[in-house]
Amino acid sequence: MIVILKKDISQENLNRLLEKLREYDCSYLLYENGEPILRIKTKQNVLTKDFFLSQPGVENVYRITPAYELATKKSADHETTIQTGDLQIKPHYFTIIAGPCAVESEEQILGIAQKLSTSGVHYLRGGAFKPRTSPYSFQGLGIDGLKLLRKAAVQYRLKVVTEAVSSSDVEIVSEFADIIQIGTRNMQNFRLLKTVGQQKKPVLLKRGMNATLEEFLLAAEYILQEGNPSVILCERGIRTFETATRNTLDISAVPLIKQMSHLPIFVDPSHASGKRNLILPLSRAALAAGADGVMIEVHNQAEHAKSDGPQSINFETFDELLKSLTEIAHVLGKEIQ
Amino acid sequence: MIVILKKDISQENLNRLLEKLREYDCSYLLYENGEPILRIKTKQNVLTKDFFLSQPGVENVYRITPAYELATKKSADHETTIQTGDLQIKPHYFTIIAGPCAVESEEQILGIAQKLSTSGVHYLRGGAFKPRTSPYSFQGLGIDGLKLLRKAAVQYRLKVVTEAVSSSDVEIVSEFADIIQIGTRNMQNFRLLKTVGQQKKPVLLKRGMNATLEEFLLAAEYILQEGNPSVILCERGIRTFETATRNTLDISAVPLIKQMSHLPIFVDPSHASGKRNLILPLSRAALAAGADGVMIEVHNQAEHAKSDGPQSINFETFDELLKSLTEIAHVLGKEIQ
Amino acid sequence: MIVILKKDISQENLNRLLEKLREYDCSYLLYENGEPILRIKTKQNVLTKDFFLSQPGVENVYRITPAYELATKKSADHETTIQTGDLQIKPHYFTIIAGPCAVESEEQILGIAQKLSTSGVHYLRGGAFKPRTSPYSFQGLGIDGLKLLRKAAVQYRLKVVTEAVSSSDVEIVSEFADIIQIGTRNMQNFRLLKTVGQQKKPVLLKRGMNATLEEFLLAAEYILQEGNPSVILCERGIRTFETATRNTLDISAVPLIKQMSHLPIFVDPSHASGKRNLILPLSRAALAAGADGVMIEVHNQAEHAKSDGPQSINFETFDELLKSLTEIAHVLGKEIQ
Amino acid sequence: MIVILKKDISQENLNRLLEKLREYDCSYLLYENGEPILRIKTKQNVLTKDFFLSQPGVENVYRITPAYELATKKSADHETTIQTGDLQIKPHYFTIIAGPCAVESEEQILGIAQKLSTSGVHYLRGGAFKPRTSPYSFQGLGIDGLKLLRKAAVQYRLKVVTEAVSSSDVEIVSEFADIIQIGTRNMQNFRLLKTVGQQKKPVLLKRGMNATLEEFLLAAEYILQEGNPSVILCERGIRTFETATRNTLDISAVPLIKQMSHLPIFVDPSHASGKRNLILPLSRAALAAGADGVMIEVHNQAEHAKSDGPQSINFETFDELLKSLTEIAHVLGKEIQ
Repeated sequence: MIVILKKDISQENLNRLLEKLREYDCSYLLYENGEPILRIKTKQNVLTKDFFLSQPGVENVYRITPAYELATKKSADHETTIQTGDLQIKPHYFTIIAGPCAVESEEQILGIAQKLSTSGVHYLRGGAFKPRTSPYSFQGLGIDGLKLLRKAAVQYRLKVVTEAVSSSDVEIVSEFADIIQIGTRNMQNFRLLKTVGQQKKPVLLKRGMNATLEEFLLAAEYILQEGNPSVILCERGIRTFETATRNTLDISAVPLIKQMSHLPIFVDPSHASGKRNLILPLSRAALAAGADGVMIEVHNQAEHAKSDGPQSINFETFDELLKSLTEIAHVLGKEIQ
Repeated sequence: MIVILKKDISQENLNRLLEKLREYDCSYLLYENGEPILRIKTKQNVLTKDFFLSQPGVENVYRITPAYELATKKSADHETTIQTGDLQIKPHYFTIIAGPCAVESEEQILGIAQKLSTSGVHYLRGGAFKPRTSPYSFQGLGIDGLKLLRKAAVQYRLKVVTEAVSSSDVEIVSEFADIIQIGTRNMQNFRLLKTVGQQKKPVLLKRGMNATLEEFLLAAEYILQEGNPSVILCERGIRTFETATRNTLDISAVPLIKQMSHLPIFVDPSHASGKRNLILPLSRAALAAGADGVMIEVHNQAEHAKSDGPQSINFETFDELLKSLTEIAHVLGKEIQ
Repeated sequence: MIVILKKDISQENLNRLLEKLREYDCSYLLYENGEPILRIKTKQNVLTKDFFLSQPGVENVYRITPAYELATKKSADHETTIQTGDLQIKPHYFTIIAGPCAVESEEQILGIAQKLSTSGVHYLRGGAFKPRTSPYSFQGLGIDGLKLLRKAAVQYRLKVVTEAVSSSDVEIVSEFADIIQIGTRNMQNFRLLKTVGQQKKPVLLKRGMNATLEEFLLAAEYILQEGNPSVILCERGIRTFETATRNTLDISAVPLIKQMSHLPIFVDPSHASGKRNLILPLSRAALAAGADGVMIEVHNQAEHAKSDGPQSINFETFDELLKSLTEIAHVLGKEIQ
Repeated sequence: MIVILKKDISQENLNRLLEKLREYDCSYLLYENGEPILRIKTKQNVLTKDFFLSQPGVENVYRITPAYELATKKSADHETTIQTGDLQIKPHYFTIIAGPCAVESEEQILGIAQKLSTSGVHYLRGGAFKPRTSPYSFQGLGIDGLKLLRKAAVQYRLKVVTEAVSSSDVEIVSEFADIIQIGTRNMQNFRLLKTVGQQKKPVLLKRGMNATLEEFLLAAEYILQEGNPSVILCERGIRTFETATRNTLDISAVPLIKQMSHLPIFVDPSHASGKRNLILPLSRAALAAGADGVMIEVHNQAEHAKSDGPQSINFETFDELLKSLTEIAHVLGKEIQ
């Protein structure tokens, strides 16, 4: 942290500040030279930017190292591999997670799972607990949905990715899921983050629709700090003034996250755009921008989906998507899984 | 809902649509006249805009009645009164809620409570469970904080407003609080909304920093629908491109909410601006725009606050604020409480 | 500017940097102390943040003094008075500018001017050159509109505020107007800013709907730098994700601008909200937040307005507005003019 | 346009409305059936949404056909080819426009032009008139810059793309340029749009950083309507809350524009990101999403650039970029030019 002091800071205020630093065991450099500047190194992050801004004699404060220590990339080849059973999400692979927005029935989920399995896809998504903007919308099948997902996964040898919406559900979700999803509205549900941080299962953390990349990585930090090293980040669009799409896919987040963090970064083009005819070009763009995978809403009967129908693609489009991604991946030295 | 049908919609697709409407007991009008339009009235909200957009033969869909039925204002003088013990938040009153961002110590909270009491303020705010962007920031005193708040409230005859951050905390918070606060990051934590909806205590619901007014009222609807009629809305700034303030106070939300809903609307200028020297003008603006109250961060030693120091005002500024608000309220035919 | 240097910056790169500073006559302090920092003072702003960021050996750059030198407030009571003939926009006054969005006919503009005059309002707004989003919308009466404005102004002793949309129009607009308005879409039309900067007439500069306050003051700086000291700033709403209003009125901009700059700041609630039933509460809020005035769309027949009908108020509401503002102004120690 | 009428609209108000429609020669359908709805078809766009919203008896208004008639895609294979001399920007090609932010010197522009020519690139960009946020920043070489661009173009057989910032410059810019660029800050400088609409040269129109896609196409409509059919659209990032990048590249705009309009759409990753190490992944993403080309800032000595240094790439990175784009283009059935 760089703390710009007022030219005329009193000796008393300066001393009080330095004392505080020593009290909290922060090493620092004081640059005097007429107009004083403090450069502070603090491992504990206990003295925040806000703290310094509140002190008399302080003019301004700039943070120069990221606040997310555990999520930070330490070197160019520092990249985390996510293990789920025998499968790995790792560099040089582009992983597809696909499935319906919500589990609706046994027939539906088995039908989709079969399709994925045939197509060589290994990860099945599907919501059992659904966070919905309106209390009047379909809220998911709950535990029955979890059981159906597991059944489909066992039958077709797939991994299950499904959402936990409250810390009290984490245990049960964890029992049925291979990867626990944290939704965009819960990215700063810190209690929930801590709870999944104590699990052994990998976590797919979706970016809050109004979160900066720094806040996104700080949310991941909550999970990492509790001891769970397996966090998959997922860009899913941010909220902007543009209404032609449901959200605005922040494609730059992909290469930026690859530079800032060692965690894998996925893209969810379905929620980002809200439009099924954008899924193919946006998935291609995600791959081309360097993403480690995509999460896509696929439905056997998109026009009858109980939620997110307009953004779900059907099997035919899904085949076309896989074919196109495979070709581009090849050029980029990546393998689709 | 207005559903614009494609000029050439097949009779089969049209029939399927109408059948669906009858199945869900929705009354509707079919305007034919060459280019067909459907006007649908549905009490149950089961057939959503998304559903219709997914149907073959549908060109576009427009919602014309608000999705939040219980939160909707039914007539010009439809305004909810919030009862907390002997006190009321109601029309023609402008209510001040004040206190520190976080409860830090007995000395701190008693000192502030005494000040409020002397000033004629009846509502004490203070966080015991703190949602913090970074896992390294001060996370609150927890239950000890709740106890200190209650002690201060008893001693100085104040009502306690404090936040619940997880549905598992609601019971304990409800025991110590007079009004349960739901923070901006939890505005769409639907599980939490449902849980506080089952309580007898009033709820102060802060607007999500990226929530539209419609989504804000739908979040309130979750609480109302569970049977709790006492919801206080609180505008606290939305996230925009402007970085000169922490968030952008959406002052228009105040008169708009007064037109859309019967629920009282407060303003939190502290979180909206993040700057203590904006609290006075923004509080005045809130009152002038028609708000039912403000929630303000006041600290006995703002420069030592463990959180939100830069946006907390001291006692002196608070006195100035009360004086100014009282004068303006008088002109507007309102009484400060 | 604070330039954080890399710990291992080579002596050669450091020397090149310092040489550049001397070449451009910038005074600086080099804080060494193990991890070097440069603090640069530059009157000329020739070496920008971008320049330093591009240099080898530079880690990061922070600007600590505002880039807008002439627009900066130098002391607490530094406030510019705007003179138009015998009238002044100045501290302790709250000035009303009112009139139709566009001049439509002689009957219309004379009718409105008469009303303003009777109500004690001195400034008549009205567009002759209209910037419209669609080429198919009404584009204004042009020079005929200017003539009608002047006629109304002469007849009812009013000052004319009207927009110039291109530097080639400035001369003719300047001939008929008392205050030249620069619209939101032209806030960064730098050629136009320079041209009005060379005029003798005051300029009312509307904030770009996506401009930060810093960019807003830099736009004012373009005008001031050309020698025209009379700039009135006008907050008119910024673009955000919220669609319930046309734009989001950034009410915090009012007290912030008062702290950052000596220039007067107005509010345009009509364009900010786009809804006539918000004009009264937002005008009150502007006054309460410390604005120096408001600019309001008033129409004799709002339902027949050729542009901006939905946000124009009629004479009856205008009377109510004036009455309410007068009462609040009185409490705040201000006078309505 | 769909106009929802109030259930109890008076016969008089309804008649007045219908009369107005006949007066303006708009065909319409009146759906009565208890709750009346008007469906209006208007070729002239003279009766706007605002007009109807201002009428008594009108409840709400929805636009159902796009307001940009000339820019609209009429059929799946409706795609405009842009001719500049012997070169074409057209389907199945991916066109690179490259060069410095600003023309700085003969040596600089010739050096870059030579590099482009050697690399097989045909379009040279470079600013002679620079719109800069601060009046203290480098403002460009003006006409001397135009002459240098032309010299470089002649010597290395390139096409020149350069910006006009004011309608009074259009003639001179048109003399030296092959494609006239309209910058993001001028996207709604309607006078300028009309002026370039009267030229014979193609226009590259950059999206306003706060413009919706609808407004973007309406800006193009201004140019088309004046008779110039050769408009190239360019997505260059929109302004959002995210500060990790200069702007947020709206990659979805690419496939959306391809669906909405017949005009080619380019991407400018340099201004979108502001960071040179994002140019490669974002250019790949643009190509993969279906863009017709990219416009990239390349500099022979990026660390000495007079503007936009941090976002300019050097020759080495440019070579890597071309190689990578060529490989991906091949897979997509496109050719790089």
